[in-house]
Amino acid sequence: MTRSLLQHLVGDAEFEALFTDTAELAAILKFEAALARAEADAGLIPEAAATAIEAAIAAFEPNLADLAQGMIKDGVVVPALVRQLRAAVGEHGKSVHFGATSQDAIDTGLMLRLATAIGLLEQRLVAVETALAALADRDGALTMMAHTRMQQALPISVAGKIATWSAPLERSRRTLSALRRRLLVIQLGGPVGSRAELGDKAELVARLLAGRLDLGLAEPWHTQRDPIAEFAGVLSRITGSLGKLGADVALLAQNEVSIVKVEGGGGSSAMAHKSNPVNAELLVALARFNAGLLGTLHQALVHEYERSGAAWTLERLVLPQMVVATGASLRLATTLIGQVGFQSGRPQ
Amino acid sequence: MTRSLLQHLVGDAEFEALFTDTAELAAILKFEAALARAEADAGLIPEAAATAIEAAIAAFEPNLADLAQGMIKDGVVVPALVRQLRAAVGEHGKSVHFGATSQDAIDTGLMLRLATAIGLLEQRLVAVETALAALADRDGALTMMAHTRMQQALPISVAGKIATWSAPLERSRRTLSALRRRLLVIQLGGPVGSRAELGDKAELVARLLAGRLDLGLAEPWHTQRDPIAEFAGVLSRITGSLGKLGADVALLAQNEVSIVKVEGGGGSSAMAHKSNPVNAELLVALARFNAGLLGTLHQALVHEYERSGAAWTLERLVLPQMVVATGASLRLATTLIGQVGFQSGRPQ
Amino acid sequence: MTRSLLQHLVGDAEFEALFTDTAELAAILKFEAALARAEADAGLIPEAAATAIEAAIAAFEPNLADLAQGMIKDGVVVPALVRQLRAAVGEHGKSVHFGATSQDAIDTGLMLRLATAIGLLEQRLVAVETALAALADRDGALTMMAHTRMQQALPISVAGKIATWSAPLERSRRTLSALRRRLLVIQLGGPVGSRAELGDKAELVARLLAGRLDLGLAEPWHTQRDPIAEFAGVLSRITGSLGKLGADVALLAQNEVSIVKVEGGGGSSAMAHKSNPVNAELLVALARFNAGLLGTLHQALVHEYERSGAAWTLERLVLPQMVVATGASLRLATTLIGQVGFQSGRPQ
Amino acid sequence: MTRSLLQHLVGDAEFEALFTDTAELAAILKFEAALARAEADAGLIPEAAATAIEAAIAAFEPNLADLAQGMIKDGVVVPALVRQLRAAVGEHGKSVHFGATSQDAIDTGLMLRLATAIGLLEQRLVAVETALAALADRDGALTMMAHTRMQQALPISVAGKIATWSAPLERSRRTLSALRRRLLVIQLGGPVGSRAELGDKAELVARLLAGRLDLGLAEPWHTQRDPIAEFAGVLSRITGSLGKLGADVALLAQNEVSIVKVEGGGGSSAMAHKSNPVNAELLVALARFNAGLLGTLHQALVHEYERSGAAWTLERLVLPQMVVATGASLRLATTLIGQVGFQSGRPQ
Repeated sequence: MTRSLLQHLVGDAEFEALFTDTAELAAILKFEAALARAEADAGLIPEAAATAIEAAIAAFEPNLADLAQGMIKDGVVVPALVRQLRAAVGEHGKSVHFGATSQDAIDTGLMLRLATAIGLLEQRLVAVETALAALADRDGALTMMAHTRMQQALPISVAGKIATWSAPLERSRRTLSALRRRLLVIQLGGPVGSRAELGDKAELVARLLAGRLDLGLAEPWHTQRDPIAEFAGVLSRITGSLGKLGADVALLAQNEVSIVKVEGGGGSSAMAHKSNPVNAELLVALARFNAGLLGTLHQALVHEYERSGAAWTLERLVLPQMVVATGASLRLATTLIGQVGFQSGRPQ
Repeated sequence: MTRSLLQHLVGDAEFEALFTDTAELAAILKFEAALARAEADAGLIPEAAATAIEAAIAAFEPNLADLAQGMIKDGVVVPALVRQLRAAVGEHGKSVHFGATSQDAIDTGLMLRLATAIGLLEQRLVAVETALAALADRDGALTMMAHTRMQQALPISVAGKIATWSAPLERSRRTLSALRRRLLVIQLGGPVGSRAELGDKAELVARLLAGRLDLGLAEPWHTQRDPIAEFAGVLSRITGSLGKLGADVALLAQNEVSIVKVEGGGGSSAMAHKSNPVNAELLVALARFNAGLLGTLHQALVHEYERSGAAWTLERLVLPQMVVATGASLRLATTLIGQVGFQSGRPQ
Repeated sequence: MTRSLLQHLVGDAEFEALFTDTAELAAILKFEAALARAEADAGLIPEAAATAIEAAIAAFEPNLADLAQGMIKDGVVVPALVRQLRAAVGEHGKSVHFGATSQDAIDTGLMLRLATAIGLLEQRLVAVETALAALADRDGALTMMAHTRMQQALPISVAGKIATWSAPLERSRRTLSALRRRLLVIQLGGPVGSRAELGDKAELVARLLAGRLDLGLAEPWHTQRDPIAEFAGVLSRITGSLGKLGADVALLAQNEVSIVKVEGGGGSSAMAHKSNPVNAELLVALARFNAGLLGTLHQALVHEYERSGAAWTLERLVLPQMVVATGASLRLATTLIGQVGFQSGRPQ
Repeated sequence: MTRSLLQHLVGDAEFEALFTDTAELAAILKFEAALARAEADAGLIPEAAATAIEAAIAAFEPNLADLAQGMIKDGVVVPALVRQLRAAVGEHGKSVHFGATSQDAIDTGLMLRLATAIGLLEQRLVAVETALAALADRDGALTMMAHTRMQQALPISVAGKIATWSAPLERSRRTLSALRRRLLVIQLGGPVGSRAELGDKAELVARLLAGRLDLGLAEPWHTQRDPIAEFAGVLSRITGSLGKLGADVALLAQNEVSIVKVEGGGGSSAMAHKSNPVNAELLVALARFNAGLLGTLHQALVHEYERSGAAWTLERLVLPQMVVATGASLRLATTLIGQVGFQSGRPQ
């Protein structure tokens, strides 16, 4: 898919790739294959069925127009996808998606992709922290004027300043790692979240499924979205902390303040002399964007009955944007830090 | 561009088309052509320059890869676009974008597209109101049980009920129409919003430009985004009112309540008997989505100095989504109302 | 009630007074008195009943502990209040609140107070505009450096700068005035919003009630909160525009920039030399506060069935805060503008 | 201070008490006393000064009118308070607040109160979980109809249903406990967050101060508000999870659904037969309120320079409300669960 100009600015190709239809369908099919194999291992469906399902999935080419129609009708892609997949599997078609419900496939598919996302986020957090450490190594010994409440206060060390940018990111990285185990779990509940269709093999199937997908084991959590909200909170704290860094750089790089110089600033269509701290500004924009989205995502915690299409759709509208914005923010921050130089010897 | 499955559900092709790069670039180029002609008419640039610019724009094929690079560097597409356009124009290149700044082109380009959007929104509002009127014609004479605070209250007429869905939409439609004149204006300020580059022809150029683009005349409003925030408020009131309609339909269509029957409900991947009020749920999701985005857009009113890249980017991240969500909500509402039937004679 | 220290800073006594229990109860009782008289005039209750009700209300001392208990039990104060009032009225007690429901009394009571609030807001908007005009008179002829994207751009006139602060406030004031008629209307629907209890006198009673309370006439709007959301939008646009002014002043008053000097800045507990632009910062804080609340208020548009205790309570949690924050922001802005002086002759 | 009627409904006396001026001033004074003693122990101020400061604080009666004036002027109460305290201490007055800044006192004072708040929240979470366990003990063996996407699905056990309400609360309680150590730390940075005024005794003073106040040790975090944002996230997940419980109870208690009966429902001023699930509705309102506030609080992560009066004030406007709303929500949930009974034998 062609990326828009705005995506080039505030999006991120690597993270966007996790939320394409291609990526989602692949993750759902991975769930269906693993489920079939787990159910065969548990004796719930024939071995031959699992083999046929795996083979069909390996060769599967979804009919996208039909999926789009299914999406429009059902509000979720899985019923149409399962129908297509059953047709592709043929004889053992009825073993496809056995005992599962749409949300099992979609939520587990989401977790598979969030596992990748978290790995990438951790890498990028390390990259930002490394860039800040390098900046501190180079410029940390300088002294700069501190400002409180928008007024000059007293001098501080640049190293101390940089430390206030790093510390929140380190905390968020540790929180993110600690969250992995709580967040990255299978969803397997069946139509009403009770796993009733799997009978006394439910626990076993869940365990086997989790093992195959390298996800944690969990009770069905169809209506319990608090770990997702918690994850989103980390995202917004990352972008918020980078927004603070961006705001600081933009302030420090003001011509009159000149504590920081930003190389490679953006040009203007009207003023040749301008060198705009574009990346710094973008960090602020993404921080405010994610903060707002976080509030909206928390609205989706009010999930009615045993599954809410309204709350669930709201989550789907918001969460991917937050992940991409966070990835973009981290990428931009690394670039920005590489452009920044603290100025020594500036008169106060 | 291929539309995603989620866009098929909660997006809207007609409105999405207004926010593609193609649409934005076309609108910007339309601004540049009209500006050149206005400036030629005012004697600021040669007639031949305007003619050359119009011709170049008519044949212009932007180099998208270069624009993407420009976007990344400058945070805005206009500097790179103007560069390309000047090269295409050749001799009169320096007359391109004369006295204007990036934000002039982008904001005016936005207004050109919002003019279309408002027209479409008005049509769709009428469509929903018409569908509600038809529903009232057919079912309005029935009586239904009212519920207050989630408990049965006393009977009301179906016509009265439907009227509570229509009235807010009519109000929003009228507000939208009244807003047209305030909102749909040119942006022409030059680098710092003073039109200084246009000298004593500034007012004349602005008037000619507005006339050519069929937009209203306005003082430069680079940092004054309140009309956009006001427009976004109407959008969120529309989706909020439709969210109320959706919530009502989902409640009234509960099997136990059965005051409303929804034809063509969505299927489940696990339960053949289900008929889910998908469109009703989506209206609720879109209402909550837009409400959250509205709050975020208002954060962008805090616009520092004479132009804020941070606030402006935030607006760009949010506003198109709100317009599309509103268009989608209106489309889904018309569909939903066509699926709804009030039930008569149901025992209380 | 004692005001907290924080209220002294970001609250506003005049606006807070509109949202005390005292003010709310007085407004509700005014509604009940006017309703009784309107119903007597329409022949629905005896003249003597209206007279007795008016007399009882004139002398009424609510039992606050009992009202608090009623609030806790019923989620709304009106049932307990009507019980007390009926006891106070005695023989004609059953004519109290005839054909009305809690929401009629509370919503109409809200409108009576918003009428006062809007008047105050208009006055304060004029005061800010007047202060800006005086500032422009004194300093407008000066030239200052404009900054775009946080970098020095080109010089502009101070008068032009001040005009960008004034224009959005003028627009909001006009919008507020235009909204008066749409917003400030009676609520009279009875238990399920159909006015059924008032029979063929419903329209007459509504008209008489509106006349007595100097409010507009409207169909029952229990579940249609869009005019309130629209009003809240104006509030947030006002605070957002003042937040822009505050952000600008804080930036321009930086020691290094010194385009503006702020007299009477706040002191620090640790640095005697500081003069902090406290009021400028507060304008930013209030802008962001109101922006967030606006998003939340719009969540309350999704109002289920014929009356939602959930949506309604959410509105009650948010709206008064927004009104007070707006009043405070306008007061602080007037103070701040009086403290501001543009500096001439500053070297670039 | 008299509590308003609305506070009786959606506030909570125990939590409100933590955010009164009295509580804040007491906490600030506790910080100042502990700081003086720590500095005396470290040899930075005379023993006699610490003793005099402790004695003066023990007997201190703040002049509230003067504090209010100071608040208005400085945007923060500490400068005026320190002035008063120094006068009360007399000779050793200059040792008061030595090496500290306003934010040190206020942030540490906040942490002292949040320590109490977290203890209370944990107790109330246990109370809700206990009430749910009792409900499960009594009604868990019953079967109820599950609903997905607002339509009847298949039967589930009541025990399973209740487990979906409990699990998120248990998770939030564990997260809250784990957060204690990260969140509840001293703030001690001095004017620009560098502890420069304390020289080589800075670390020692910090350690002694933390020990005296039973708070954790931390580097100065004036501009790093992410732990506060993380705490607010837990609050919103608690209210969100209770909002889901409330939404479920309101739905299940609909007359037509009657899976749940709610004792002691609220009365109507117009319909004697009503029994409204008031507490269930309030849980939904508080969930949406806190979700919105969370988004706003995250806006305050963008904290400019070494201290932002704007971001900090925004946090102060939002955080106390979130804590109180969470306390209220937990109280209401315990009450509601005590009112709820699942119905057996109901026909589907």
